[in-house]
Amino acid sequence: MGVVVSLDDKKNSTGSVQPLIDLTKADMARVNELILSKAGSDVEMIPEVANHLISSGGKRLRPMITLAAARMFGYEGDGHVKLATSVEFMHTATLLHDDVVDESDLRRGKSTARMIWGNQASVLVGDFLLGQAFKMMVDVGSLEALDVLATSASVIAEGEVMQLAAAKNLETTEDEYLAVIKAKTAALFSAAAEVGPIIASSSRTDRQALRSYGLNLGLAFQLVDDALDYGGNAKDLGKNTGDDFREGKITLPVVLTYRRGTAEERLFWKQALENGANDDKALEKAKGLMTRYGALSDTIQRARHFGGIARDALAPLDQSPQKDALLEVIDFCISRVN
Amino acid sequence: MGVVVSLDDKKNSTGSVQPLIDLTKADMARVNELILSKAGSDVEMIPEVANHLISSGGKRLRPMITLAAARMFGYEGDGHVKLATSVEFMHTATLLHDDVVDESDLRRGKSTARMIWGNQASVLVGDFLLGQAFKMMVDVGSLEALDVLATSASVIAEGEVMQLAAAKNLETTEDEYLAVIKAKTAALFSAAAEVGPIIASSSRTDRQALRSYGLNLGLAFQLVDDALDYGGNAKDLGKNTGDDFREGKITLPVVLTYRRGTAEERLFWKQALENGANDDKALEKAKGLMTRYGALSDTIQRARHFGGIARDALAPLDQSPQKDALLEVIDFCISRVN
Repeated sequence: MGVVVSLDDKKNSTGSVQPLIDLTKADMARVNELILSKAGSDVEMIPEVANHLISSGGKRLRPMITLAAARMFGYEGDGHVKLATSVEFMHTATLLHDDVVDESDLRRGKSTARMIWGNQASVLVGDFLLGQAFKMMVDVGSLEALDVLATSASVIAEGEVMQLAAAKNLETTEDEYLAVIKAKTAALFSAAAEVGPIIASSSRTDRQALRSYGLNLGLAFQLVDDALDYGGNAKDLGKNTGDDFREGKITLPVVLTYRRGTAEERLFWKQALENGANDDKALEKAKGLMTRYGALSDTIQRARHFGGIARDALAPLDQSPQKDALLEVIDFCISRVN
Repeated sequence: MGVVVSLDDKKNSTGSVQPLIDLTKADMARVNELILSKAGSDVEMIPEVANHLISSGGKRLRPMITLAAARMFGYEGDGHVKLATSVEFMHTATLLHDDVVDESDLRRGKSTARMIWGNQASVLVGDFLLGQAFKMMVDVGSLEALDVLATSASVIAEGEVMQLAAAKNLETTEDEYLAVIKAKTAALFSAAAEVGPIIASSSRTDRQALRSYGLNLGLAFQLVDDALDYGGNAKDLGKNTGDDFREGKITLPVVLTYRRGTAEERLFWKQALENGANDDKALEKAKGLMTRYGALSDTIQRARHFGGIARDALAPLDQSPQKDALLEVIDFCISRVN
């Protein structure tokens, strides 16, 4: 049974990440070089594990945002390249640790590092990348950027623990769920965007605008991701559809469907997510219930809400190619669901 | 069968950590307050896990070294308290991740956090503490101190991966082993000591002296720890004697005994450490072989060698209560073996 996520506003824009890719192309070439050099070590296992994940075809949205957010305010130095690389390393470290915590076998269609090198290597190489990220930030020398990124590191971990504590708890409310993704996903997007104006010595208002853009984009991004896990196509996504379901993760589509369902349906969800009755047949039933209660389209609707806030956050800023590109990314993130 | 570690130079000094404790008492009270406050979070599981380890009775040697090393050069501010707390958090984060990597059940005689809250919480709370550590360092505002501590974070992780890669490899040489403990243990002692003169804006020579003191003290400390794992008494240690043996860890006493042994004995070591034939009887046999080849006393001899370098590192500095206390710590670390 296929699941169609309705996209009422699709006519407005499908968005694209291409303008951002084009604008940051030269800088991203330097980021990619720096990634390879800073993931290097005489200890062979480190570059092996790091490159497995680094080369696995992520879009590198976060570092591109940092680069564009710095250039947008006229930054001319090379600190933004180091900060963008730090942001990507923080993200990579989080993924390595997440796969251990979630006991995931696949990420973007490839075996996770922990399946190849073990949980131990994933934990330690994550720690190494985090250390390298901080070294690069220190190198840039901006205490304000350091503060924003170090704070986000704590907040991300806090969000992950929050998620762990709420794991398999179907009584999780929408607000609680939003608090989790705000910390575990949106905080890094927010920091990635805010360090742009910081390193460009731009105004407090500009910092706040980019911080809000990043935060709300991150929320939209995660919500769409949650919907995709039930409504996408494994090949296109490069991820296993149904991963969240099999891992018993409580995401917004589940929260909404559970709350809107009958007592009998709630029992189904408990069996599936709390007791592991999560085979393919159960997944199909879950998708059917989500469609019946409009949970996927409402999740996208929520994402669109945050996308709108992100858009308005940038509204007062002067027009620039960077601003246009960042606005396009909002639509791109939301239209991924098709 | 008991194992007696011979201590030829015992008459010289047994050392004590008491002078350091006395000297740093007021500052340590502030460190302990800060530890509690910065390990706090609305996410209940975080302080629970953090405090389990924090309150488990470690000596807090590393933060005391930072405090003494700052005061020693006339530092009067309060940044040293934050740096000392950061150092302890980095150490705690490492322990949390180590227990996951080593699959340890006990630490200092108590169940490890991972046994109570699971591997997942240990990984994530470790990440949280690391983030909090960096935030405090940023708060202090010394880019030089940040650089030293961020570098040590990378180096520690690198050392742990090195150890993982060399795990159960009995052909590990003494040099390779020293490279591992230099990274995984000595780097943090070194950074803890060096940030003292840095924050006190002391000279390059003073920084180098304290860095060398910390590095060599750390090496001595780890070597003695390795010997204790085969020669100590579980109750006194608050750790399981034989832990390293059961985990198949290659430490210096093993490296020496294996190299000095017969072909038949090497077979025993391979069975025990590589293939898990590590019951109590095997442990007793291992201790017997170590005694026969003088591996424990030679490990202590190596520790004494590095202790001597640490002592000479401080030699050119003016006499001060801090210097005296730090010198006493060297003897204390080595005389723990009795």
